[in-house]
Amino acid sequence: MDLKKKFRELVMKRKGYQYVLNIVHWDSATEAPKEAFERRAEMTSMITKDMFKLRTSQEYQDVVYGLYEQLDNLDDTLKREIKKEKKDLDKIVKIPEDEYVEYQKLIELSQHLWEEAKETNDWDKFKDKLEKIVAFNKKFVDYYDIDDLPYNIKLDEFEEGMTIDIYDEFFGALKKDLVPFVQRILTEGKPLKVDVSKDAFDPDKQKDFCNYLMGVFDFNQDRGLMKESVHPFTWNTHPKDVRFTTRYLENYVFSSIFAAIHELGHALYEQQIDSKWNDTLLSGGTSMGIHESQSRFYENIIGRSKAFWEVHLPKFKETFPTQLKDVSVNDFYRNVNKVESSLIRVEADELTYPLHIMLRYEIEKKLFNNEITVDELPTVWNDSMEEYLGIRPETDRDGVLQDVHWSAGMFGYFPTYALGTAYSAQILHTMKQELDLEKLVKDNEIEQVNAWLKDKIHHFGGSKSPKELLKEVTGESFNPTYYIEYLKEKYTEIYL
Amino acid sequence: MDLKKKFRELVMKRKGYQYVLNIVHWDSATEAPKEAFERRAEMTSMITKDMFKLRTSQEYQDVVYGLYEQLDNLDDTLKREIKKEKKDLDKIVKIPEDEYVEYQKLIELSQHLWEEAKETNDWDKFKDKLEKIVAFNKKFVDYYDIDDLPYNIKLDEFEEGMTIDIYDEFFGALKKDLVPFVQRILTEGKPLKVDVSKDAFDPDKQKDFCNYLMGVFDFNQDRGLMKESVHPFTWNTHPKDVRFTTRYLENYVFSSIFAAIHELGHALYEQQIDSKWNDTLLSGGTSMGIHESQSRFYENIIGRSKAFWEVHLPKFKETFPTQLKDVSVNDFYRNVNKVESSLIRVEADELTYPLHIMLRYEIEKKLFNNEITVDELPTVWNDSMEEYLGIRPETDRDGVLQDVHWSAGMFGYFPTYALGTAYSAQILHTMKQELDLEKLVKDNEIEQVNAWLKDKIHHFGGSKSPKELLKEVTGESFNPTYYIEYLKEKYTEIYL
Repeated sequence: MDLKKKFRELVMKRKGYQYVLNIVHWDSATEAPKEAFERRAEMTSMITKDMFKLRTSQEYQDVVYGLYEQLDNLDDTLKREIKKEKKDLDKIVKIPEDEYVEYQKLIELSQHLWEEAKETNDWDKFKDKLEKIVAFNKKFVDYYDIDDLPYNIKLDEFEEGMTIDIYDEFFGALKKDLVPFVQRILTEGKPLKVDVSKDAFDPDKQKDFCNYLMGVFDFNQDRGLMKESVHPFTWNTHPKDVRFTTRYLENYVFSSIFAAIHELGHALYEQQIDSKWNDTLLSGGTSMGIHESQSRFYENIIGRSKAFWEVHLPKFKETFPTQLKDVSVNDFYRNVNKVESSLIRVEADELTYPLHIMLRYEIEKKLFNNEITVDELPTVWNDSMEEYLGIRPETDRDGVLQDVHWSAGMFGYFPTYALGTAYSAQILHTMKQELDLEKLVKDNEIEQVNAWLKDKIHHFGGSKSPKELLKEVTGESFNPTYYIEYLKEKYTEIYL
Repeated sequence: MDLKKKFRELVMKRKGYQYVLNIVHWDSATEAPKEAFERRAEMTSMITKDMFKLRTSQEYQDVVYGLYEQLDNLDDTLKREIKKEKKDLDKIVKIPEDEYVEYQKLIELSQHLWEEAKETNDWDKFKDKLEKIVAFNKKFVDYYDIDDLPYNIKLDEFEEGMTIDIYDEFFGALKKDLVPFVQRILTEGKPLKVDVSKDAFDPDKQKDFCNYLMGVFDFNQDRGLMKESVHPFTWNTHPKDVRFTTRYLENYVFSSIFAAIHELGHALYEQQIDSKWNDTLLSGGTSMGIHESQSRFYENIIGRSKAFWEVHLPKFKETFPTQLKDVSVNDFYRNVNKVESSLIRVEADELTYPLHIMLRYEIEKKLFNNEITVDELPTVWNDSMEEYLGIRPETDRDGVLQDVHWSAGMFGYFPTYALGTAYSAQILHTMKQELDLEKLVKDNEIEQVNAWLKDKIHHFGGSKSPKELLKEVTGESFNPTYYIEYLKEKYTEIYL
């Protein structure tokens, strides 16, 4: 059979497997009964095995490497698909199958152990597994036999083209400019007049408000939905089925609101991707970083702007008439931008957030460069917290054990959170030359912002690399200056 | 490889496919966004194809037929699995693959067409497809080359061992005894004092009451859940993940309550099946008829009993304090057992329900015996309605187009509804010799009823045929007398 036809056929099969696994994952994260877990793992492993077998089959390799040999004769779409896939395949086929299976088992087991270790604040319980996970990752990178630093290879897996050099420059700038700025805000900043962030707000009414937000952001509810889960996330199978979650904490109303707007950012990106990529390996957003740039754009640049609350505070007050009687737009705006030194990344404010990421990046870099051992992680973590944020976790639960990523072997993922946020400021700089964003937000015409992002970024799906995309949209390569300037300007105005 | 080991491996793979398809189906029936449909069909077809390929593969046939040859040396479980599977396989492998695929496509298309035809009351739109479906079913039965009447073969597919002879005797008894009895109730029955069935009841509070019912029936919520869907149904992947739905109609509160109890019956059956059958082809309830016997037992024999409402009417009144102030237990009991001639099967009361089924059985029998054509169905339907229930549908939507089954090619399914209901009365007869059911219901100790049913029926899963099971539980073969007596006694007491 024609190689191209065979490739498409195998890709569709992979997509079928991925599709059903995605639905099962959605189900398990949002509603499956507690005791369904064990059997689910057994059943889905049948599909996972089929998927792995397909991808490592001689047939699939013949097709991908066969097409790679005639790369110059392929159209742009297929060319990019084959280049991406060949890069992945080069790695996968070098891992001995039994080690791959062993690693998958380790990962699955470790995530449960991590949960328990976190709950019981027991670092020792998790440490051995983490050591093994790190060792496996180093060994796999060795197998790949690529002439580059191990951590560079990991970074590229989560954001195509990113390197230690680029991140060092980025985080170096943050350390130089942002750490002292945060210190200044924390010591000299004007205090809030009121603080409603920990007041009680009826969860059912929070839900009503989040439903209202779906309308505000013009999310297409015939092609997606919002639900509830412990950890908010966005999930998609294709542009006509994009779902996201938020969570309702009675005593932390901003959690549901900003999780919802954050995930709406991811979800709008996915809904606006052209369906012509559906059957290709270029479906979905192009990278972690670009995805995060969209979620942060909606969450922070729109959702934490004064213009936004000028329009929507009345609705919020209507939803919660008693709690907010005397709160002005300005006071509320300062509330949603409250800066504080906090221990937990996912609860950090816009200004201190990147420092949490910087800490993780530095630790991962040293770990993969053999400068520190897993054993030293808790101390290194706590020392860095003190240095950057002026507070020291009293427990590992609030320190090194707080995030799931490492238990899943995801090293190189964290930096994309800060990178994406920085991308969003760079994109904002361009957008402002073409759109009056503040006016659109005030006029409640966010669909025009969506249209701009669709045209510049979303519709391309994965057909352009993050580097290409950023260059085409903003006219320059990644430049962290916009981000630092954006933060300084916004928080100077609010606090100093 | 050892045949037994290979068989188990292939069964587990089939179960993996079935598991993910089940989850996707649950998702699509309870929450998936509207426009997700098309892509879902494309994606799940990848899995369906794999599943069909596995089952018709030479490897699978070699294993099943190979084990069949050594049937006498197999343990009881494997023996029953292989006998069942060989019987199915004998049929499946005789259908040419291209015709099977064509039929699957026809079925998928027809279900949509049926929906449209029902909505627009347009029989002609659906008729041609139904003709093709019937023709395919007749042709397939021909391929099977089994020495039996075509409709007997269809009946056996939905209830192992059932035949036209047995059903003819059953429905003959219903026609002789029940039709005139229903006529008498409808003309001479004492009218209800109050009728709250069409009053407005807040759907959110209906939901609260259904949640309460889960507790009453001792449904394990760590191993299942209740949700909402347009058509209530029960769904299970294994005993630790059993889910069901109900629906909340503001002006028909009994819909949510009795759908919930009915589905709870199915769900309790599935939850109580021994997990030792999980990895075998004997997992799940043993047949449609036995399943329906359980759902009807809970819905009608418990849920529509006076004892039940003596205990739970207070809670119902607490949930809806204004609507039911002056309604006595006896009036309420008569309300939930209101008898009327109605056009729609799924809304029919306990007494007239089997007549709806009888009508469908007779039509299917004639259709497969070439006594009537698809063209004549609307007229035959309406004439029978007039004969059995004294009313004539004014539209096909309220007549021949009302049910989904035929559009899905399910001929031989309907009679199991009435059969199961009749089984439940026969089982009740035995139960009463061992348990004081009325007292247990009054003492709110339904878990003891569950325990009895688990011990006698549920835990066996599919390891016994419906015939064996009924014989072992009740000491005799299927005997419709119990059912007719039960109905006459109950409704004489209420109405005459």
